[in-house]
Amino acid sequence: MKSKIQSVKGTRDFYPEQMAFRTWLYGKVREVSERFGYQEWEAPFLETLDLYAAKSGEELVKQQAFVFQDRGGDEITLRPELTPSLARLVAARQAQLGKPIRWWSFGPFWRYERPQKGRSREFFQWNIDLLGPDNPEADAEMAAIGATFFRAVGLEAGEVKIQVNNRKLLERKVEELGVRGEVAAVFKLIDKRDKMSAEAWEGYATETVGLSAEQLSGLKDILSNRELWRESESLVRFFENVKALGVAEYIEYEPTIVRGLDYYTGTVFEARDRDGEFRAILGGGRYDNLVDAVGGDPLPATGFAMGDMVISLVIEKYGKKPALAVSPTQVLVTLFDEKGAADALGLARDLRAAGLNTEIYPQAAKLDRQLKYADGKGIRLVAILGPEEAAAGAVSLKDLAARSQRRVPRAEIAEEIRRSLDSGRGS
Amino acid sequence: MKSKIQSVKGTRDFYPEQMAFRTWLYGKVREVSERFGYQEWEAPFLETLDLYAAKSGEELVKQQAFVFQDRGGDEITLRPELTPSLARLVAARQAQLGKPIRWWSFGPFWRYERPQKGRSREFFQWNIDLLGPDNPEADAEMAAIGATFFRAVGLEAGEVKIQVNNRKLLERKVEELGVRGEVAAVFKLIDKRDKMSAEAWEGYATETVGLSAEQLSGLKDILSNRELWRESESLVRFFENVKALGVAEYIEYEPTIVRGLDYYTGTVFEARDRDGEFRAILGGGRYDNLVDAVGGDPLPATGFAMGDMVISLVIEKYGKKPALAVSPTQVLVTLFDEKGAADALGLARDLRAAGLNTEIYPQAAKLDRQLKYADGKGIRLVAILGPEEAAAGAVSLKDLAARSQRRVPRAEIAEEIRRSLDSGRGS
Repeated sequence: MKSKIQSVKGTRDFYPEQMAFRTWLYGKVREVSERFGYQEWEAPFLETLDLYAAKSGEELVKQQAFVFQDRGGDEITLRPELTPSLARLVAARQAQLGKPIRWWSFGPFWRYERPQKGRSREFFQWNIDLLGPDNPEADAEMAAIGATFFRAVGLEAGEVKIQVNNRKLLERKVEELGVRGEVAAVFKLIDKRDKMSAEAWEGYATETVGLSAEQLSGLKDILSNRELWRESESLVRFFENVKALGVAEYIEYEPTIVRGLDYYTGTVFEARDRDGEFRAILGGGRYDNLVDAVGGDPLPATGFAMGDMVISLVIEKYGKKPALAVSPTQVLVTLFDEKGAADALGLARDLRAAGLNTEIYPQAAKLDRQLKYADGKGIRLVAILGPEEAAAGAVSLKDLAARSQRRVPRAEIAEEIRRSLDSGRGS
Repeated sequence: MKSKIQSVKGTRDFYPEQMAFRTWLYGKVREVSERFGYQEWEAPFLETLDLYAAKSGEELVKQQAFVFQDRGGDEITLRPELTPSLARLVAARQAQLGKPIRWWSFGPFWRYERPQKGRSREFFQWNIDLLGPDNPEADAEMAAIGATFFRAVGLEAGEVKIQVNNRKLLERKVEELGVRGEVAAVFKLIDKRDKMSAEAWEGYATETVGLSAEQLSGLKDILSNRELWRESESLVRFFENVKALGVAEYIEYEPTIVRGLDYYTGTVFEARDRDGEFRAILGGGRYDNLVDAVGGDPLPATGFAMGDMVISLVIEKYGKKPALAVSPTQVLVTLFDEKGAADALGLARDLRAAGLNTEIYPQAAKLDRQLKYADGKGIRLVAILGPEEAAAGAVSLKDLAARSQRRVPRAEIAEEIRRSLDSGRGS
């Protein structure tokens, strides 16, 4: 047996069936983004390493980014996330761009991680961001977009949730424990909480972060206090706003949420399935200093990112995966011999001109084989143009679902196909 | 002044305006691909270098491909073209995939070339392929898809052309000159013809390729003989078929077309603007041995690729660039103060639930500023919800194009907006 060339580890092949799902997902992302008035944009897939060095956090840049030198010796990064690119584009045209800026994007990203369920090295991500306002209305809009997306794909509030916290509130509470100046280390500690055992986590807290027993106890109180949001004016208004936006049932306060990236400054959130089976579905929050950090003027901002892998698993788990047509073809035109090719191609031409997605069987073959192909592809209608039909100036239209066949004058065939498609849709 | 972080050389930033064009182009590609019954698929963006080594040709692999080692030491290539990936996916599931296979794709590619007008290092490409039949009907379908795409974007046969040749015909004619065994070198020579001066080309022909004066003269005869296609049964049927498919005016025989990639085996073609101002708009042809070469069973195939850069220049040159809405927003909801936020968000919620793309002005501001923002974004309708309107249970709907404003009961506002949008569309 010949050896087949393999794909790169952590990448995925999208055969038509998988691609139809990705296109459906992209369509839902577009629908919801546009429903809130966001404009689609896209950054390059290659960026300089410098862009991420400032603010993305060590893990992402030093351990997970694909970095290489191009043939000219320049250091290139396959983008591991989009937000720094967003800040770069905004900074480059900051004066000309009208504020607020509402942008969304759906494209590929790369991270060098161990491939596993819900995680690959090459994945797609929806990013959506609102730049300009620094108020709880903007934060609430982001959460509402996430919830509206869940609704759009059929996920209910009993199945998924968006958990919210505020870094400023958390910072204040942590400082009250007397760990002033080491807040970043404590945030990192909090972010690790569900990635370690309770014992290992407490060891990390006291030995690595250097918390006293009293401070650790205080921190645990903070992290279990579900009423803490009442101490944050920003979160109080946030929860009023998500209520006004009609998505309150999806959203809850969660004191342990802090998010892993260094650039967050205020309200942060992530979504999970209620059973806690998967990693976060989406995550984001306020990052008011990033445009500044890449060379622009300060510009408040909030946004989130959702990878395509976890959401796909969640959609599947809850039985919300739609039945998608894998072939766009509405009618197959048969081909019986070389002599009849011009006629068959001419029929296909006319059907296409009438706006019908038309495929021709591309080589002479027996009718049975052509019908079997149509059936396997899910093509319901077959326009049969044999010598008899050609002589009669007619076409036989076979409906594989209805198991019916009738002869139609050549001039009326497009209209007849359209009628059949419409009646099929209703049944 | 702070220094701004730069983008990577040869990449492009897609601000909403540029992205709207790319999305429009992708939509046209989808429309035409589906009109011929093709299924969308996608390969990974990272592949192994081995995949290209076999058949893509030295220039592409050794000079133009971005190749690097990942953190695990594996050699990775940023894909410079799609056809080898197609062959890999087909070979991996050859038994299960029903034939014919009609697949299309639109995605990013990378080549390390000198960035210039119509060429960047990161670009998008439409690929479309038909695997199974090895007949001129399949070749003609490919050319017809290209021509139908030109029609779909408004390019007429007087503006663009698809030039066709056949490698088997050319091989036979070249062998008749007595250069048996060195046909590949002569093909390379032919491919270089429009990239060098006549003098340099003749020097290359005699010195590097080793043609005699007589052979060179014979070759020049071949390359100027526009009736040569009559000697190829395959091309004769090809031209009958493109006529039956209704696209003959776009397609012509051109004896100098040979295409640069090593894997082509039969009919090849490329499209150009009639003025010859730009490089090829699209190019492709038959490649019957590629699935075999990556480890599958032999499977005849034909297809073409079209980059997004040259077609964009051609569309622009001939004034076919459409006017595209840069914002998806249908109505802007105003916000005057924090107290009114819940009301405004509730109105936005209701409009969205009614299927209207609704943006809220995201912070308290004077009406003038909010109207100016709407105007700048091309948003025609503004739903004004001030204290007066709130007290009256109403909303004022302002039409920035008609310069009109009227007060509408809150319960009727969605319907009124829909009416305004419909009447605006007609005007």
